[in-house]
Amino acid sequence: MSTTAPKPGPHDLPDVSALVVGILGGTGPQGKGLAYRLAKAGQQVVIGSRTADRAETAAAELGLGIWGADNQATARDSDVVIVAVPWDGHAATLEALRTELAGKIVVDCVNPLGFDKEGAYSLKPAEGSAAEQAAALLPDSRVTAAFHHLSAVLLQDQGVEAIDTDVMVLGDERAATDVVQALAARVPGMRGVYSGRLRNAHQVESLVANLISVNRRYKAHAGLRVTDV
Amino acid sequence: MSTTAPKPGPHDLPDVSALVVGILGGTGPQGKGLAYRLAKAGQQVVIGSRTADRAETAAAELGLGIWGADNQATARDSDVVIVAVPWDGHAATLEALRTELAGKIVVDCVNPLGFDKEGAYSLKPAEGSAAEQAAALLPDSRVTAAFHHLSAVLLQDQGVEAIDTDVMVLGDERAATDVVQALAARVPGMRGVYSGRLRNAHQVESLVANLISVNRRYKAHAGLRVTDV
Repeated sequence: MSTTAPKPGPHDLPDVSALVVGILGGTGPQGKGLAYRLAKAGQQVVIGSRTADRAETAAAELGLGIWGADNQATARDSDVVIVAVPWDGHAATLEALRTELAGKIVVDCVNPLGFDKEGAYSLKPAEGSAAEQAAALLPDSRVTAAFHHLSAVLLQDQGVEAIDTDVMVLGDERAATDVVQALAARVPGMRGVYSGRLRNAHQVESLVANLISVNRRYKAHAGLRVTDV
Repeated sequence: MSTTAPKPGPHDLPDVSALVVGILGGTGPQGKGLAYRLAKAGQQVVIGSRTADRAETAAAELGLGIWGADNQATARDSDVVIVAVPWDGHAATLEALRTELAGKIVVDCVNPLGFDKEGAYSLKPAEGSAAEQAAALLPDSRVTAAFHHLSAVLLQDQGVEAIDTDVMVLGDERAATDVVQALAARVPGMRGVYSGRLRNAHQVESLVANLISVNRRYKAHAGLRVTDV
């Protein structure tokens, strides 16, 4: 009798309902939107900010059992930590949290973009991408990248029931990307789709510049679906 | 009484049914697949190759009124020229056709990728992207970028009726991107979605590396849909 468990299929994902999700930069539009959607789906969510006060205020506005804390406490008390800070604070924020983030699943959703009169354009971090910068700064964390292509407007709109967008999930460790895919799947309408290793994160981050062009042309809140999956 | 025509909306596209579409690299899987789909939709299509013989053989296999020619004649006799050559022949092919491509709408669909044991990864052309390289080499052409995210397998499969994928169309000239969007829209299931300027082509080209990871994980022929458009 074999004792080997069957190899999980690509759609077999772990139960993540008991995990605490922290959101660094949780007082910004993307962070607040993700906090709202994950908490509404039943997840325990803590919003982090540089000061606990700001985080607690944002958490109280959102309700749903969300609480607020400073970034250190948020990182320390969470199982999975979503990084939703502005790009220009990305490196400094993560560097200061190396100890607290050790052993945690870190989900980078930062899009390094510049803006000028012709719209948005991609910035190329020296490490290759924001996610690879995170991996370089957090050698003891399990770094993934996801949640780039979501409209903060739709995430925060309480009249919107389902988020019609797939979440591309990248990372070099299967167990970590599986957890992030499972988290995405808790939100009605969303799926987490494994989409490659961290070395291919730059184009996923940068594609937000294209979605901004789409939004401008079509007056839309564009997202992406991966077909045939 | 005003004589000003109403400004076209984002979904108003020109009639492209009379245009001749040439496909450079039309004997490769992507080129053949695009030739088949466009000709099946009623477009006049000419396949180009380095030698007319090879092109004529591929055209005869496809039928549907498609004809074959060498690259020079293909470029000269077409209104719209799709560039579907391998990345390592991209610059040399276009440089040799500068005269023939002058004034034409050029549609670059080349994805600069490298491959190793971990799969595909993005290559960054010195010009920023394959499309920007084309624009630099073809100063008298109307360069756009599109048709990156299509599965050559599905395009060529005559049992597949509709192609369930949006085509991201990039370019700096509205009239040219409108024509390319209209061409994409002729294929059942496809839409052409304006997705930004050429300076944002790199991430659209590179995203094919991620779709290759998706295909491997899910045993799929993945494409993309833009939501809320």
